[in-house]
This record gives sequence, C-alpha cells and structure tokens, in this order.
Amino acid sequence: MIKVSLIGAGNVGFHLHAVLQKTAGVEIVQWYNRTKSSLALHACATNITDNLSELHEADIYLISVSDDHIEKLSTLLKKRKGIVAHTAGSVTINVLKAHENYGVFYPLQTFSKQKTVDFNNIPLCLEANNSHSLKLLQQLAGCLGGPIHSVDSVQRKALHIAAVFVNNFTNHLYSIGASLCQEHNVPFSVLQPLIAETADKIQSLSTLEAQTGPALRKDNTTVENHLSLLTQEAHKKIYSLLTTSIQQHNG
Amino acid sequence: MIKVSLIGAGNVGFHLHAVLQKTAGVEIVQWYNRTKSSLALHACATNITDNLSELHEADIYLISVSDDHIEKLSTLLKKRKGIVAHTAGSVTINVLKAHENYGVFYPLQTFSKQKTVDFNNIPLCLEANNSHSLKLLQQLAGCLGGPIHSVDSVQRKALHIAAVFVNNFTNHLYSIGASLCQEHNVPFSVLQPLIAETADKIQSLSTLEAQTGPALRKDNTTVENHLSLLTQEAHKKIYSLLTTSIQQHNG
Repeated sequence: MIKVSLIGAGNVGFHLHAVLQKTAGVEIVQWYNRTKSSLALHACATNITDNLSELHEADIYLISVSDDHIEKLSTLLKKRKGIVAHTAGSVTINVLKAHENYGVFYPLQTFSKQKTVDFNNIPLCLEANNSHSLKLLQQLAGCLGGPIHSVDSVQRKALHIAAVFVNNFTNHLYSIGASLCQEHNVPFSVLQPLIAETADKIQSLSTLEAQTGPALRKDNTTVENHLSLLTQEAHKKIYSLLTTSIQQHNG
Repeated sequence: MIKVSLIGAGNVGFHLHAVLQKTAGVEIVQWYNRTKSSLALHACATNITDNLSELHEADIYLISVSDDHIEKLSTLLKKRKGIVAHTAGSVTINVLKAHENYGVFYPLQTFSKQKTVDFNNIPLCLEANNSHSLKLLQQLAGCLGGPIHSVDSVQRKALHIAAVFVNNFTNHLYSIGASLCQEHNVPFSVLQPLIAETADKIQSLSTLEAQTGPALRKDNTTVENHLSLLTQEAHKKIYSLLTTSIQQHNG
C-alpha cells in the first residue's frame, strides 16, 4: 500500500484525489489545502487539513500547487522521510533539492473540475533524484494504469510548451470557431464532428499528411476572401499569422 | 434510387465516391475527372470518363472541383434536367444560377485520401434554389445518415472560415507540438491523449469552461519562460499572439 499525502486542491490536485481514492494499492493519508473549506465536501472519506505541521507521515507527498509556491511550500516538508514530488510541467526538479528523496510526477493532460478524466489514458512523466524515489513514483504511476515516461526537467518543460500549443491554443481556436457560429446564427454543434476528426486524424496520420485547407493549397483567393469577412481584428491577425506559418512549414 | 453523377476526384470527390457507391438508394451513374488515370482503379465498379460531353443523365450532378473551376465547369452542364450542385464551403450558390435546378451539398469535414471517414457523423450543409432541388438534396443527404443543416451561402462561408480555425490551424498547432517533441527527443505519442481530451472536452463543456493554462491564469513568469525556450521565431510569434488573444477573450 503506497501512502500518499496530497497537497493542493487545484484542478490537478482535485483529479488526483478523485482517482487515487479509488485506486487499489494506494491510500490517501491526508489532503492539505490552505483553505480547508474547498476540501470540506471530501471530509467524510479523506482526512483533510489546512495545517502543514499536522501532516501525517506518507511514502509520497504530492505537491499540486501553483508553480510559484512549490519551492516555498516544500521547505515546510523538510526532514520528512517520504518522497517529496511536484506535479508541474514547467518547474525544474531542482526546486526540491533540499530534500533527501524527491521527484516529479507530471500527468500530461488538461484538467477542469467539471470534466472527469480517465487516468488509464494519461501519460505520467516521471523524474527523480535517485533510483529509490524513481521506483516508488513508477509504482504509484503503475497503479493508475496509464503510459509512463521518464523525462528530465528540460524535456518536461518542452512537453509543457507543446501542451500549451496543442491544448490551450487549440481550445482558443475552438472558441473563435464558436464565436463565428454565434455571429452567423449557426449551432456550434455543426463544427464538433470536424473537431473530433481533426484530433482523430493524427492518431494515424502525421500532422503533415493531415494538413488540408486554403493555406496549404496556397489558395490566396479564399484566404483574402476569409480575411475580408472576419470582423474582429484579433481573428484577422491569427488567421494571417497561422496561414503564413503553414505555408512556410509545408514548403 | 437517386442517380448521382460525380464530378471531380479530389479529396471530397474521392470520399463521396467511396460512401455513395455503398449507400442504399443511391446509384453513381458516372464519375468524371479531367485526368481519367486517377479514376482508373475504380473503373471496374464505376463508369468513369474524362469527357463532359459524354455525361449520362443524372438526378444530381455533384461538382467537387477546386473553387475557381466550379462556375466554368458547371456551364458545360447547361440544359441538363438534373440538379447541379457543388460541394464547396466558400463558394456562393449564385455561381450556378445559369441552371434551372441547383444547389450546394457541403460536407463539413476534413478529408484526406489516406484516412477513411464515417459519413454518419458528417454534417451536410444544404442550400438550393427551389424546393424541388432542396428536397432531392435532402433525400440524398438522408441516405448518408449524418446531421442535415439548411444554411445559406453567407452562413456556409462563415462555417468554412470556422473550419479553417478549428481544423487547418489546429492541425498546424499539432505540428508545432510534434516539432517540439522531435527537438527534445520525446515521442509525439505522449501528446496524443491530451489532443484527444482537448477535442473531447468541448463536447460537454463550453470553450470558455474548457480553457486552462498560463495565458488564462495570467501566469506571466511561465509565459516569459516558454517564450525564452522557443527556438523558432514563427513559434514565438504564434505563442505571443494566441496568449494575448486568450487574455483579451477571457477578460
């Protein structure tokens, strides 16, 4: 039984709590958040606290707080025997180097509280300061069932940037699609099969093979036509920049 | 039995042929392309031609050629009794107004020859010059099983622009993700569950609810950090512009 102490109740902490509490081989010994009220709903099943000095011993302390607070918060866990690990994409492992055993347990996924996720499909990117720590983090990751990758802090940061492009920016493109639908009184649902197929395509095709559209075809008549129809300056700029980038990238 | 004459063998024509030849209630009476050789593989099952003057009579002539050629090509179909319809997102119905019965049969999806698609999930956006034409186009669309929408030429053009954002541009963001993975020696497959979840999320959440990441959080430390790590100027520009746009859009 791996004893886990969860620290933080943001989107990642929330979903880690949800999955770990029903994962065989794992026990959540405690869940800390600086405001206890946001944990109150879970007080029945989980030992909750807003006081770090009250933390019980655990095999792994999983820190899921905002990037800026990881280092400072981790110093309050000094002299603990367990592994101190954070779950952030962009933060180097070195912020935890004051500890004896430390690492990173980064689930590469987008988390919103309103949407359940399946950890069987979530890659876990692991890094640790020694083989003992790596082994235990791998064991915890193994309990969750998804693919496990050993990545160093530089690779993880690159993955986090890539995640910003394929998730945060992509979702913003969806929102532009939604606003165009709204402006022209068409339901957004008309675009959903296209959005699903766009994501599905690159499971079997390369992004180069999957690319279609006026930018790729250098169909400047359509490009100019589209630009003239966009009413928001921000949308025009994004359309132009991405069209140019597609044309440069695809030679 | 609806008799369809298919004109053009680009990505859309190719997939329309594939689905219509196995759709009950539909007969492909002929498939035209200006180069017959690209149809040769299908000569066994379908009557193929590269001569428009040889076209047999049909209930619907479906024109799937490049936008610039639709009008000119359609004039060669004058005095036909059947409905002349094109399949393009960005071309007004009016380019076909020399005909008695005409319309638009626009499947809103991304088509690549290497990837099969399921027409049960492809919205068909229809427009026609009279109720007779609309009814027959609806009947053909109904045989394919997907959702049917009546949209006028302005709405269809807006949908086509939206499709460029959510498909062409999104796929380009995937390609940037892929190049970051390659640069840092991480398999692109690590990003695929995130890409799938990003698309899946907006089936149940609004794009506003689904938005996450450093731009939304106004986490300027991470934004600056990411910008400093990007090695390609084009990627920096896209990162900056989309970050600004997310911040403006989400207040």
